[in-house]
Amino acid sequence: MIVLGIDPGTAVTGYGVVTGERMASPRLIECGIIRTRSRDSLADRLNEIYAGVVELIERHHPSALAIEDVFYARNVRTSIVLGHARGVVLLAASQAKLEIAEYPPAEIKKAVVGAGAATKEQVQFMVARLLRLKTPPQPSDASDGVAVALAYLMTAAIPRIDSDVPAMTVRR
Amino acid sequence: MIVLGIDPGTAVTGYGVVTGERMASPRLIECGIIRTRSRDSLADRLNEIYAGVVELIERHHPSALAIEDVFYARNVRTSIVLGHARGVVLLAASQAKLEIAEYPPAEIKKAVVGAGAATKEQVQFMVARLLRLKTPPQPSDASDGVAVALAYLMTAAIPRIDSDVPAMTVRR
Repeated sequence: MIVLGIDPGTAVTGYGVVTGERMASPRLIECGIIRTRSRDSLADRLNEIYAGVVELIERHHPSALAIEDVFYARNVRTSIVLGHARGVVLLAASQAKLEIAEYPPAEIKKAVVGAGAATKEQVQFMVARLLRLKTPPQPSDASDGVAVALAYLMTAAIPRIDSDVPAMTVRR
Repeated sequence: MIVLGIDPGTAVTGYGVVTGERMASPRLIECGIIRTRSRDSLADRLNEIYAGVVELIERHHPSALAIEDVFYARNVRTSIVLGHARGVVLLAASQAKLEIAEYPPAEIKKAVVGAGAATKEQVQFMVARLLRLKTPPQPSDASDGVAVALAYLMTAAIPRIDSDVPAMTVRR
């Protein structure tokens, strides 16, 4: 199973492509960032993000796209602009008919570190450890993309108590 | 000059295609709505909206896309979801290399009715009057799409006092 994890942003979108079978150790295939030019219009930046995600999907053929949920507003305007970026990422996933899994930030931390209130450093440490890397992926946005992909794999790996429910937990 | 006006929404996206030359009366080419299924996921609904806008651009070859600004938050979550819909509309416009004009709701009202605090009914009345229609376009979302296209034409038609500035006022 190959999962594409996306940490969306209009300036920098982090991504991580991770593969893993149930109960087996996950493995990092690729990670990085899609950086847009601040002088470009929002529309052109969205075009860059969309093209970047489409290219990743074509290159790696993931079966699922995992993405951070943004329905928490520190800054309303920032969250609305972020919604635009998320929109074009979800569009690319829908067009490729990928399974889409969305996770609030606390759930990503809980899946990767075991605590919803984990620090950014703890998440990076666990990302490196789970993937047997010497150092966490850089820049941190790439790490965040990997973390959300790992959250998908970690969540999927936990057997459910209720046997009537499919073992794969997908939040839509 | 052909303008595609869009009033974005995840459930219903209104649109209006209007043509007009400077100082001449505008004419309605087409208007309507892109309605998505509430049972579909947000990603699939975004796909519907995107495909609908792409189809409109291919059919009418507008030179500009006019769209309502959403950076005012009545409800934060609603505004963020709306940001997703706006994102895929802006993506379609960027891919087609259209000029993009964004207007806050009050500016659309001011351009069409002459008053930023105009009611929805006043806007609909003026939309019908400006386009010499017997009744405002239905449903009201279609009227809203037409109104934002008209806002673009009305704003472009006003000669600027400062002759150094291009007569076309485009807000990015």
